[in-house]
This record gives sequence, structure tokens and C-alpha cells, in this order.
Amino acid sequence: METLKGKQAAFEIGVVIHKRVVDDIGDSYGYDCDEVLVYEFQKVGLIVDRVAGLHDEFLKLAAPVEVLGQAAAELHLKKRTHIGETTHDNPTPPFYLPIFLPSSSCSFVAGVDLQFEWDESEAFIKQSDGSLFSWCERFRCYNHMIYGIVNNGESAVVLKFNGRKFNWEPGESLMWKLETEAIVKEVFPLHDETKRKQLLKRWALNLWDLTNQPIDEIYAYYGTKIATYFAFLGMYTKWLLFPAVFGLILQLVDFGSLQLFVLPFFFICIISWAVLFFQFWKRKNSTLLARWQISYSAGSESAYKYMDTEWSSFHSSAASAKKWGENKGKENEKFQREEWFGRMMRFRNDAIIILSIICLQLPFELAYAHLYESIGSDVVKFGLTAGYLFAIQYFTQIGGKVSVKLIKDEKNKCSEYRANSLVYKVFGLYFMQSYIGILYHAVLHRNFMTLRQVIIQRLIISEVLENLMENSLPYVKYSYRKYRAIRHKRKREKGYAGGKHIFNSRIEKEYFKPVYAASIGDELEDGLFDDFLELALQFGMIMMFACAFPPAFAFAALNNITEIRADALKILVMFRRPVPRVDATIGAWLNIFQFLIVVSICTNCALLVCLYDREGKWNISPGLAAILIMEHVLLLIKFGFSRIVPEEPDWVKANRMKNATHAQNMCSKQLLRNISGGRGMLVKANCN
Amino acid sequence: METLKGKQAAFEIGVVIHKRVVDDIGDSYGYDCDEVLVYEFQKVGLIVDRVAGLHDEFLKLAAPVEVLGQAAAELHLKKRTHIGETTHDNPTPPFYLPIFLPSSSCSFVAGVDLQFEWDESEAFIKQSDGSLFSWCERFRCYNHMIYGIVNNGESAVVLKFNGRKFNWEPGESLMWKLETEAIVKEVFPLHDETKRKQLLKRWALNLWDLTNQPIDEIYAYYGTKIATYFAFLGMYTKWLLFPAVFGLILQLVDFGSLQLFVLPFFFICIISWAVLFFQFWKRKNSTLLARWQISYSAGSESAYKYMDTEWSSFHSSAASAKKWGENKGKENEKFQREEWFGRMMRFRNDAIIILSIICLQLPFELAYAHLYESIGSDVVKFGLTAGYLFAIQYFTQIGGKVSVKLIKDEKNKCSEYRANSLVYKVFGLYFMQSYIGILYHAVLHRNFMTLRQVIIQRLIISEVLENLMENSLPYVKYSYRKYRAIRHKRKREKGYAGGKHIFNSRIEKEYFKPVYAASIGDELEDGLFDDFLELALQFGMIMMFACAFPPAFAFAALNNITEIRADALKILVMFRRPVPRVDATIGAWLNIFQFLIVVSICTNCALLVCLYDREGKWNISPGLAAILIMEHVLLLIKFGFSRIVPEEPDWVKANRMKNATHAQNMCSKQLLRNISGGRGMLVKANCN
Repeated sequence: METLKGKQAAFEIGVVIHKRVVDDIGDSYGYDCDEVLVYEFQKVGLIVDRVAGLHDEFLKLAAPVEVLGQAAAELHLKKRTHIGETTHDNPTPPFYLPIFLPSSSCSFVAGVDLQFEWDESEAFIKQSDGSLFSWCERFRCYNHMIYGIVNNGESAVVLKFNGRKFNWEPGESLMWKLETEAIVKEVFPLHDETKRKQLLKRWALNLWDLTNQPIDEIYAYYGTKIATYFAFLGMYTKWLLFPAVFGLILQLVDFGSLQLFVLPFFFICIISWAVLFFQFWKRKNSTLLARWQISYSAGSESAYKYMDTEWSSFHSSAASAKKWGENKGKENEKFQREEWFGRMMRFRNDAIIILSIICLQLPFELAYAHLYESIGSDVVKFGLTAGYLFAIQYFTQIGGKVSVKLIKDEKNKCSEYRANSLVYKVFGLYFMQSYIGILYHAVLHRNFMTLRQVIIQRLIISEVLENLMENSLPYVKYSYRKYRAIRHKRKREKGYAGGKHIFNSRIEKEYFKPVYAASIGDELEDGLFDDFLELALQFGMIMMFACAFPPAFAFAALNNITEIRADALKILVMFRRPVPRVDATIGAWLNIFQFLIVVSICTNCALLVCLYDREGKWNISPGLAAILIMEHVLLLIKFGFSRIVPEEPDWVKANRMKNATHAQNMCSKQLLRNISGGRGMLVKANCN
Repeated sequence: METLKGKQAAFEIGVVIHKRVVDDIGDSYGYDCDEVLVYEFQKVGLIVDRVAGLHDEFLKLAAPVEVLGQAAAELHLKKRTHIGETTHDNPTPPFYLPIFLPSSSCSFVAGVDLQFEWDESEAFIKQSDGSLFSWCERFRCYNHMIYGIVNNGESAVVLKFNGRKFNWEPGESLMWKLETEAIVKEVFPLHDETKRKQLLKRWALNLWDLTNQPIDEIYAYYGTKIATYFAFLGMYTKWLLFPAVFGLILQLVDFGSLQLFVLPFFFICIISWAVLFFQFWKRKNSTLLARWQISYSAGSESAYKYMDTEWSSFHSSAASAKKWGENKGKENEKFQREEWFGRMMRFRNDAIIILSIICLQLPFELAYAHLYESIGSDVVKFGLTAGYLFAIQYFTQIGGKVSVKLIKDEKNKCSEYRANSLVYKVFGLYFMQSYIGILYHAVLHRNFMTLRQVIIQRLIISEVLENLMENSLPYVKYSYRKYRAIRHKRKREKGYAGGKHIFNSRIEKEYFKPVYAASIGDELEDGLFDDFLELALQFGMIMMFACAFPPAFAFAALNNITEIRADALKILVMFRRPVPRVDATIGAWLNIFQFLIVVSICTNCALLVCLYDREGKWNISPGLAAILIMEHVLLLIKFGFSRIVPEEPDWVKANRMKNATHAQNMCSKQLLRNISGGRGMLVKANCN
């Protein structure tokens, strides 16, 4: 066993393959599939551990850092280097001519991002936990290695498995082949037991830390996206304490004659609080990214991801236009036509979603709210609510599926855009569902009792239930799969007596755990989608009805404190280790939160009017109301719709991206060689 | 004369020096100042032409392209290259290892920006008019050459001038010395007579082109900032035609029973028009910049200028912090403290300005409007207006001076920020002055007659007058200076008989022309400040009162069509050639226009209420009014004040900037050498 050799290299990837059952064609021509796979993995340098499960076989893979480094170099990974950082301490290298002095004499922390080279690995900055690659980078390398195994021979290799035979053609990827032949069932990242236990102790079960979390450790273990979510949740909860205390004071203290002014003051404070919070969050986010050595230029829409994903799509659309260089003007026009066509498609889809929400969902919600208001008997009310809950489950699912389908039609350039588009659409659905009924009770019927009831109910009961569900459902799923597997096994063992297998190996347990996926569909989003949705709906609930029920903030704060630990527990214990994602910000959700702030300004004003004008003395004539509505719609147009026309034409953006990537690509290799003193190599390379 | 040698190199810079009058110390020890100057200029490679004027002497300077190139290389100017652009046509250079292929196989227009090197000048893209350097770049090079002349000797050189003697110390800049000794009076850019005449014919006098202008030629002659202004003015005027026609139709056609709905419809159209216009302007702006080969990343606040100016200030503040590398956390904290302190200072200054506008200017304006409304006699009204006009002249000047003083106190990091800060402050002043009185008439007294009168008066009379003034005042100034010079000359010539001088040489005429400077002070802004201010005030006038007087758009369109030619004439004929500025966008003005759109949504709603509610049946109770006001204030906070907290901490920004500049600096020289095949040179440089 090679496990002992790579002591520090933990097994991080699991491959599930069908167990070899039928061995009857014996020593006929052809190689055994699993043997070939293991052999090829070992040839790339991976450390393989075979574990037999109940009725699957598992390969645990680990990679020593040299192997990862080789893969990273092949992938042209960009990494932060010490170059630039250390100019202050070290003597100036010989090639620093005077021309470089103005910038080399300054001394900032950050180095330069360059393509990774194994020979110069000392030039690259290590992660805070001492490893050379972050989890995101390691995962990319693993992926590259596993799917990069191709048949290098001249002729096809005959593979056999459970009596079947098939050819592994030259140039074909082995993993793809085995996946299409359904021999390899799944490839998934494995938990690192020591780190997981450490996190469990220091994070999930550390209840008395309240909002503090070991964010850097979370980042090291889960990658950028999940760490960003927990950083956001922690900061949000911490900030929530101020309005929570304020809200409770408002509820408990009687201000006497000042009572009339307290509520508007609270309103103003809350809005300012929210605006400031999101600004400070953006600051914190960029600080975190700087600490994690991720280059991300604020404003220019996540340039970091651009480099990775979008660039390739620009590239392919440029390749289809054959003679770009010759006819600039014409090409630009074509680019522009494509850009506008894509935009029109997206606009059409948005219009479909918005119209169907307004024309189908809105009447339904209002009808429910109206019936609820007009029915007297409690029993009928209960029945109505049950029916309603059943119906919206169904509706939401349909809506989600339609959204996903529409988005797939769009020729969106990168998965980030697609994911954001999905987020907006699904949130629109939930927005109507969550708030319209409450607004109806409050504004049209001035029924503040129902409103408070609904808010309390949603904030406490439904969230407690949801947390319970979130944590128990995966366990139920896990138990069911395990139970089925054992039953299946027993049934088969009656037939013929196989060898005794290790029961309940750790990797098999993990394989039975559910994937951390979004309820809406797992292609574009992972499980964070549901968590963010919950957070956004909660934020909307407490902000939009702040004036009607100030102590809601206290409930929300309480709820979030438990949410932090519950989510941590869920992700550490209940689910498989999630595939790391590179998203560096909270993305579309930030815009949704900002939108909710604006909406809450308007709804709170309406609520204040309703609260202070119980006698209906402040008549709003239809004319005035029409003008006020028009004003708000126009403000919406001004701020929301200015996004319809992008500031920068696509071809200009393409140029800019080209400029940035090209320059860096061209320089990095040469520069590194020069610095590590490999002058001879450079000359050699030039003379080739 | 060397003029014949550089046929294509026109004289572009003029240096004004005092004429040598007293020659009586004759051949005593020391060199003649002007001779030394001319000699040094020629030594740098400049072509010098001496012209004697009425009582000054002028040196006209020109530079052959080689000399400019040398200066550009010394300045490390970044220029767009063909590298990256041509990878598709040319065979891949030898050093393109396979690792570069993914990006080198794509073919976009833009090359990479690299530091200029004279030896590799073919690698750099030429301007559209065939010259290697743009006017901005040429001007920078001239400046570098002229002020870069230092005494390289070991000992001071004794210079004499008009009987005075002084020492030119070693290492001292000659021009600074002569300027402090008041021998060199001024250095200013010269008009290029052929190009000027061409522009005059094709642009200023080409009245029938309406809004079309030869923007690229304007860019080549005047640089980015002025070309951007005229591109904006042209596009704005073209777009203005739509609401102009719409407004005229509204005025002339009677819609019968639909009349009630036409005005709100017009209002909605106008707002959408404005929002769309500014989005399309941003697109056009980035298209222009791409055409002019200026790297500018939208969003990240003019990264182009960053590289030039702000970087150095970051650098210096970093230099003051001595051991940055050792104690990251502490340094970051210090950085943050400085950032917040600067922000507080700015906040204080803004508060002073806003408070003084609200507490001093607002009552004054309201008092005037109220008196104007209540006074019956026309004679008294006339007197009042005269007094008012006199007073606001005075007030505006004081306000402007206070603003400039406050801004100088701020420790702003770059001149761009400072300029923007000034723009906001001065615009605030004018905003109150221009619109508050009109709003008072409209909303409080529902006096739409006065409102329309004032609008017409402002749009036509005052703008016609302003245009006349703008064009005649410089001429008057010019004539006066010429007259004084001639009279002075005559007086002197009575004394002693000097040689006959060429009268009215072209350069002397230009010297008498006034500088293209802002009325508010010429340190931070040039003459475009006034033009933009005029444009913004006009935009506010027509947008804010759109519903009260729709045909205003037609007046504005008409006015702008003449404004284009008048401004062109002004800048071509009346003024000296302006110093080119690198501003790549319209900067702060864009935010002001956007702000005016939001304000106009609110004012138009108020106007509509006043128009449709003549009988006052729609009572707005104080409670409702209070809540509405609160809503608007909160929306303002949401959208305006989220700028108070910057998204990115300064130190993160510093890191990012470092990253970008450093990488480019380090690469450019090496890359260029490799491409032009100078491999030997590289090795040599490395071995030094």
C-alpha cells in the first residue's frame, strides 16, 4: 500500500465504481477495467487506496504536492508570487535596470500573479495553513488529472468488465469512457477526517462564540464561496444586534408623548443601518479576498472569474469570426448585433417571468389573502391554509423549472451570468409569495394583528421547522440509502457466497450522504442557494414591515445565531464535502438585498400612513395616488432599468480582457525564469 | 535656420522671454540667458525659431519624432503595441512556447500596452493621422524635455540678463530658474496653423452638419478631454431632437379629451429618454476610447489615470511607512486610519458647503422670489432683479473661492478627485441659484406664467447673451492686450531707437489671446468647466420643468446646435491652444446629470399635482406630507450616501494597483527586446 508514503497528502477524491461481480469469462482477451483505472491513476502519480463497499467499490485518491504542482503547471494556474513583495528586503536582482526603479523601490504586501511553474514553486506564496495550493486549486488539479488520462497508444485498448467488452480508443479520456459505460458511478470530493473534526469542534459546536467563526479555516477547507457565505452570515448577525436591541426597546418602553416620533425615527435608523451594512460588507469582502490572495478588481464584474471562464467563450465566438483583423468595423458590427440579440432574448425571458408572476401569481396570492380575511371560522381557515401551502409548493416547483428551462435557452456567455439570472427569477417568485399577502392585510385592511401573527409565524415557527428539516432530511435520505444497500446486499448474499466485505467503511458512508445541492436544480447552483434565499426572505420580512413590528429584528438575530451553527453542522456532518466554487462575492444576492432596502422604504411609508391615519382623515384622492405611483415607477426605471443597456460594448470589453490576459500570459514564464537565475534556459528557449 | 530640416515637425510650443533691453555690461563675465536657453534647447534636439515681438521675444519649439521618442522612452510612456494583434497573420515568434498557444491563437484587434522604446517603435500602433504620438503624449514629452534641462556640469554657470547676474547651480532645472527669475514669462502650446484652418473649415464653419463633428480630428488636435466634450455635446443634441419634436407637438396640437393623459405620458417618455441617453453615452464613450487606443477599464474609476498620477501618491504614502513588509496588520490599520481621517475631512467640508447653501443661499433666493411675486409695479420689479443679479454675481464668486480653498485643505489623493469635488460643490451653488426661485413660483404660488417666462428667458435670452459674451469677451481682452502692448512700445520707442521689429507676428498674436481657463479658477479645471456647467444647468432646466413647459426641449435643441459651432469657433479662434488633458470621461458631470434626472422625477410629480389640482381639492394633510418627505429623503440616503463608505479599503486598492503596474513594468522591456530579436541584448543586460 502506498498510503504510508504520502503521510501529509490526505485522500481528497473518491471514485465509485461498480463491483466486479461476474468473473466467468476468466482469462479471455482484454484487461480488467478497474485494474487499468488504478494503474493509470498510479501512473499519473496519484496515490490510490481501494476499498470494497457493500456493492460498490471505492477508489480513494490522494496526490503529493509535486504531482499537484505538475498539474497546476499544465493548467496554467495563476498564483500570487513573492515577486514584487520582497523587493524591499532582497538586493535588487541583476536585471532590474534603472528603468524599473520607480516602482521597485516601493514596498507593498501583494506580489504579482503569475502562471504556476513547479521549478519555481518557492516564488509562490503559500496558503495560511502552509500548503502550496488552496482547496479550489487542488480540486481543479485533481479534475485535470483524473479526466486527463487518455489512451496514448496507437491502437484501442480492449477493456472488460462484468462480462462486457469495449474499446478504449486512442486519444479518448478513460474517465469519460467509463462514465458513459456506467462503470464509474461518481467522482466526488472526500472529507478530510482530521480537519473535519477540528472544524466541528472549533466551529459547529462552539456555540458560545455567537457570531465569531474561524473564516480562514473554513476557506481552507471549503473554498471561497462557502467561506464568503459564512462570513456574510456572521457579519449580518453581528450587525443585526443593534436593530434587535432598538426594536425590543421600542416594544417594551412607553415613550409617552414622544411615541408619535419614535416609529419614524426607528424607520430612518433602520434604513441607514441597512445601507451602511452593505457598504461595509463590500469592504469586508474585498479585505477577505485580499487576505486569501485572490485578485479581484471591484467594479469590473469579477475579473477573476472572467479570466477563467468567460475568456474562453469570447475566444470561441472570435474564432467563429474568421478574419477579424482585416475588417475591424464589420467585425465590431457583428459583435454588436450578437450582443443585442442575446440581450433581446434575455429581455424576452425576463418579460415572460415578470408577466406570469404578475398575471398568475399575484391574483392567486391576493385571492388567498382575501379569503383568509373574509372567512370567520377557524376550521375553514386552517383548511384553506393547508390547501394554499400545498398549492404553492407545486407552483414554486413549476416556476423554478420554467426559469431553469428559459435560462438554458439564453445564449449566456458564462455560467456566472446564468446563475445570477436564475437567482433573480426564482427570487421574484418567492418575493410575491412571501410578502404580497402580508402587504394586503396591512395596507388594504389595516389589519395589523394578522400582520404581526404572520410575521411571528414565519420568523419563528417556519424557520425553526426549516432548520429541523434541513438537518433531518439529509439524515433520513442517508439512512434510507444505507438501509436499502444493506437489504440489497443481504438478498444477494443468499444466492452465492462472496468474500466477507468490510462493512460501513468511511468512504461508503460518505457516498450515502446526499449532495449539497440547491432545491431548484443542481446544475447552476449549490446548496448555498437555499441558504441565501432563506436569508434574503428573512431580511425582506424584517425590513419591509419594520414599522409594523419592530421586535422582528430580535427574532431574526436569535434565529441567525442558531442558523450559523446549524448550517455549519449541516455542511460538516450531513452532506458530502461540496465541490469548491470560485465565486468571490455574494453576487446577485447583493443586488437583491439592495432592492429589498428600496422596497422597504416604500412599504414602511405606506405602513406609517396606515398606522397614523386610522380614522382615514388623510384622504388620498385617485389623482394624487396615480401621480405617486407614477413617481415610484419612474424611480424604479431610473435605478433598475439603467442596467438594460450595458455601459461598455462587448467588443470593447473583449479587447480589454485580451489586453489583460495576454500581457500576463506572455510575461509570466520568462519573468520567473529570469528571477530564479535560469538565464541559460531562456536563451535556449529562444533559440529553439 | 533649422526649420527646413523638420518639414513635418510643426512648431507646437511657444516660450515667451523678456526682450534683452540693456546690453551695457557688454562682454563682462557670464553668458547671455537667452543664448544659453536656445543652445540648450538645440542640444536636446529641439528645433528652435526665434521671433522678436513688440516687447517680448518668442522661441518657437518643434521636435522631430526621434527626439520625442527619446523623451517618451525616458518618461516610460505606455503605448498600445501591435503585439498580440498580429499573432494571427505573422508566424509565431520563436519564444512562443506551446504554453502560450491558448491565448495566442485568438485574434482580437487590441494589442498590449507596453512602455515605449525608440528602438522598437515599429511595434507601436500609430495614431489615425499617421503620427506616432498623440497630442497628449507629445505635450508630455515636450514638457519633460523643456523642464528636464539641468546643469550637468560640476560648477554653477553664471548667466546674465538685462544687467542682472545669477548662478545656474549644478542639478538645477534651467527653466525653473529662469521662471523664478521672471525671465521666462510663459510656456504655452501653439496652434498648428494648417490643422487649425482645416478644422475651422471642416468643423466650426460647417454649419450644415448640424450635430456631426469630425471627432477624431478634434481628438488629434486637442486631446481626449475636449474631444470627449464635443462628442458628448453632439450626441446630446442629436438625442435632444426627439423630445424637442414631441414637446412642440404637445404645444401645438389639441388632443381633446386625451389632454389629461398626454402630459404624464410625455413625462414618462422624457425620463426614459434621459436614462437611455446616458447609458448609450457611456457605451459611446468607451467605444471612443477603444478607437483612440486608450486603456480604460470601466467601473474601476479610471484606471488609466491611476497609473499616471495616483500611483505616485500611494507610493509616497507607503514610503513614509518605513517597514511595511514586517508588520502587515499594523500597516493596514494605519492605512485605514489615514483613509478614514481623509474621509472625515471631506465630509466636514461637504457639510460646511451644504449647510451654508441651505442656511444662507436658500433664504436669500426665496426672499427674492417672494418679493418678486408680491410686488406689483414693474419698475420696482426691474430694480429688484437688477439688484438680485448684482448680488448673485458676488455670492457665486465668494462661494467658488470658498470651495477652492476648502478643497485645497483636503488631502485628496489625486487631482481628479479634487476636480470632481470642486465640480460638485460649485454645481450645488448654481443649482440653488437656478431652480429654487422657479420651483417657488410653480409649487407654492402655482404661478405657471412666471415659470414659463423665466424658462424662456433663461433658455433663449441668457444663453444667446452668454454665447455672445463667451465669444466677444476673449476678443475684447485680446484687443486690449494688443493695444496696450503697442502703446507701450510706442512710448518706449520715443526714448531710444531700437531695430525695427516684425509687427504682429503670429506667435505674438497668440500670446495676446486669453488662456482657455475656467471662470472659477484655473488650477483644477480648464475652460470646459464653464461649458459643462452651462450644459448641466440647461439640462436641469428642461428636465425639471418638462411638464410645465414641454417646448423648452425645442429651444434647448436649437440652442445646442448653435452652441456646438460657437464653442468650436471659440476654442479655435478666440483662445490659445489649450493644454491637453487626459481625462477620459466626462467624470463628475455624469453623476450630476444622473442626479438631475432623479430630481426631475420628483419636481415633475409636484408640478403635475399643481397642474391637475388647481382647485386644491386634493388636500395633502401635514402627516401625509411629512411621510412623503421622509420617503424621499430616505431614497436619497439610499442612493446618494452609499458613496460615503468606499467599497474597497485603500490598502486593498493599493495592493491591486501595485499588482497591475508592477507586472507590466517588469515585463514590457524584456518582451519588446525578445520580439525584435535582440536576444543578445537581454543576456547582456542580465549579466551586468
